[in-house]
Amino acid sequence: MVGTLPVSPLAPKAGFPKLPVIAGVTFASLAAGVKYLDRDDVMLARIAPGSSIAGVFTQSATRAAPVLWCQACLSQAPQADQGFAILVNSGNANAFTGQRGLEDCETIAAAVADVLDIPSQHVFMASTGVIGEPLPASRITDVLSALVAGLTSQGAAGAAAAIMTTDTFPKGAGTQVQIGERSVSIAGFAKGSGMIAPDMATMLGYVFTDAKVSARVLQTILADVTQRTFNAITVDSDTSTSDTVMLVATGQAQMPVIDDHESVEARTLSRALESVMLDLAHQIVRDGEGATKFVEVTVLGAESDASARVVAKAIGNSPLVKTAIAGEDPNWGRIVMAIGKAGEPADRDRIGIWFGDILVAENGWVSPGYSENDGAAYMQKPELQITVDLGIGPGQATIWTCDLTHQYITINADYRS
Amino acid sequence: MVGTLPVSPLAPKAGFPKLPVIAGVTFASLAAGVKYLDRDDVMLARIAPGSSIAGVFTQSATRAAPVLWCQACLSQAPQADQGFAILVNSGNANAFTGQRGLEDCETIAAAVADVLDIPSQHVFMASTGVIGEPLPASRITDVLSALVAGLTSQGAAGAAAAIMTTDTFPKGAGTQVQIGERSVSIAGFAKGSGMIAPDMATMLGYVFTDAKVSARVLQTILADVTQRTFNAITVDSDTSTSDTVMLVATGQAQMPVIDDHESVEARTLSRALESVMLDLAHQIVRDGEGATKFVEVTVLGAESDASARVVAKAIGNSPLVKTAIAGEDPNWGRIVMAIGKAGEPADRDRIGIWFGDILVAENGWVSPGYSENDGAAYMQKPELQITVDLGIGPGQATIWTCDLTHQYITINADYRS
Repeated sequence: MVGTLPVSPLAPKAGFPKLPVIAGVTFASLAAGVKYLDRDDVMLARIAPGSSIAGVFTQSATRAAPVLWCQACLSQAPQADQGFAILVNSGNANAFTGQRGLEDCETIAAAVADVLDIPSQHVFMASTGVIGEPLPASRITDVLSALVAGLTSQGAAGAAAAIMTTDTFPKGAGTQVQIGERSVSIAGFAKGSGMIAPDMATMLGYVFTDAKVSARVLQTILADVTQRTFNAITVDSDTSTSDTVMLVATGQAQMPVIDDHESVEARTLSRALESVMLDLAHQIVRDGEGATKFVEVTVLGAESDASARVVAKAIGNSPLVKTAIAGEDPNWGRIVMAIGKAGEPADRDRIGIWFGDILVAENGWVSPGYSENDGAAYMQKPELQITVDLGIGPGQATIWTCDLTHQYITINADYRS
Repeated sequence: MVGTLPVSPLAPKAGFPKLPVIAGVTFASLAAGVKYLDRDDVMLARIAPGSSIAGVFTQSATRAAPVLWCQACLSQAPQADQGFAILVNSGNANAFTGQRGLEDCETIAAAVADVLDIPSQHVFMASTGVIGEPLPASRITDVLSALVAGLTSQGAAGAAAAIMTTDTFPKGAGTQVQIGERSVSIAGFAKGSGMIAPDMATMLGYVFTDAKVSARVLQTILADVTQRTFNAITVDSDTSTSDTVMLVATGQAQMPVIDDHESVEARTLSRALESVMLDLAHQIVRDGEGATKFVEVTVLGAESDASARVVAKAIGNSPLVKTAIAGEDPNWGRIVMAIGKAGEPADRDRIGIWFGDILVAENGWVSPGYSENDGAAYMQKPELQITVDLGIGPGQATIWTCDLTHQYITINADYRS
């Protein structure tokens, strides 16, 4: 199945972007044969001494072994002189693999630590693919020397491709931002296409910067920005056992360390990170399994931001809303249904609904000026904006989703993920 | 779309059952042309004086006008000497139709009250079909005299057919039960196929008995039994704006009135009602849009019954679990994922999973005795049982769902419901 899927019609037209090089990070990728044949399925990132690292992970009760491993490593003061490594494989999630799963993590971490001469608790890992099958760890350890030999500062594109599963295109984003007197670079990549309703982070995302940031501030920024980016997308309402986002700051930009998350410098960096992480999150929705429409759902006038978020997700996860969008049917009644089922405060007679700039419904009924032809024409666009005003408070939230099509069924009734 | 769908492969082989006649209730149905042509789309039930009536309704924040109407009527002492009526139309939900929607309810209720010589607050209503379009009330009032002329105690099958929308078969169930020295009859029918994740009741269900029961006890029994029947099914996780279940007791069986919901007689009646309502609820799942598999999900060993129910619904609503079932793929990893995302207490290393009698996973990993061939063979059955033991407490719950297929997409990307 994998590799035979056509590229999503919503993929960025320009292809994989040219990412800025991040001083202090090198990447390598190659084919270890974990499951897939004839494609790269393992990537290694080497992170120079002096770097900070932060991570957010799935809140699933059945989280995968590498997630538990990473959380344990992060809890042990993750700012070190010796540097770090990140190793990711596709084809096998090493999830629900019992004690054996954790042993495989330990084996791989020890091997990476040995070849890079760093502590094994400085080796972060992720695995993505089928759940419940043992990870063939030796296939990964067998290629470690070759991986290390291939490490290059230009390797992010190859790394982004190596971690794909049902993804139809690799996802990258980067930017540069002026902080004080110094220009700082950010580069990141991510994967994800199905089982996307992140609870803390999305499938896999890795973001690197040469900014100089304390580990504590880095973690605060990552948790905050994730809420508005990776945690604000949904493809199919199913939350992965492996969701992981990690943020690395190598500190190789010549600048004072950012050690206060409320400082001007921290806010500037946070905004730049948000633009990169939102770009990556959007690319995951654009590569949602079977997606033909990219949909932004904004809820205004809710009792609170949290309430707006619940309503927005109820709309974005509704199979009936998503199939109507797939059918280019301006079926706003299904949006009314989704608002109603969300379980949040709403007053039917104050609800307003817009498709783009088109006022569809107001005061509890269809708007007098609304024409079904206008609605139908709007729904033919590949990128849609649905706005709901609940009219009862100041709360608001925006989430992003895609439509639900035959191709989603085809992918998931056949592919063993 | 409607009427052109093939009958669900999971439909009862015997067709619509022969329902017992309920003394005190007559039915009529005919074609009013509300929306569909060439099929019955309105049904009337006339309920004799001395009857009790009870109802449970959607908890949607955007519930339809007839739901609000029924709730108002029920709040006004629904046990009366004058009798009741129930009028239901398909083709239009009269939902999100503002003040006009309630006025249309009042118009129809007044017309029914006039022709049957009962108070208009004794006329219960429901509408099912497209959301947001005004109900053409006059098409219904125009046929009232013809409806009344056609009332017959044998009319339940016709009534069950008249309230269908995307249903592919009419749904009925009945039974007889000995209470004390008297045999009591129960007959019911329901409709529903998509937008099925009832929050208080399902799309539409009507159950009739000749038992003699006080209105208070009738409401208590209905609310209780609904929890384990109509509220324990899901087709697509989308909750309707119109969900309604009503229970009528005509009291025409010669017996002492049941006025204590903890009495032996109340419990006997409750069990018989549960068998009928569960049968109807199962028929709705069997007619789930695009369904090819009928799936029972039982969760044991949860912290509480409520927690077990949340986990069971997370499994039963997961698009990835449902597409795996459609593909006859014994992909138990997706069940692990759904358990994990449910947000309820679970310990990965105590989880057990069964397909039917086949132990698939235990102690946080695949069971040593499990064979993928056995799992694959089991998944080919049209009726499946998935059992999960969380292993941490006494809580348990069972819910029923169906698979997610191409036909669901076809129905909902094209049909304006």
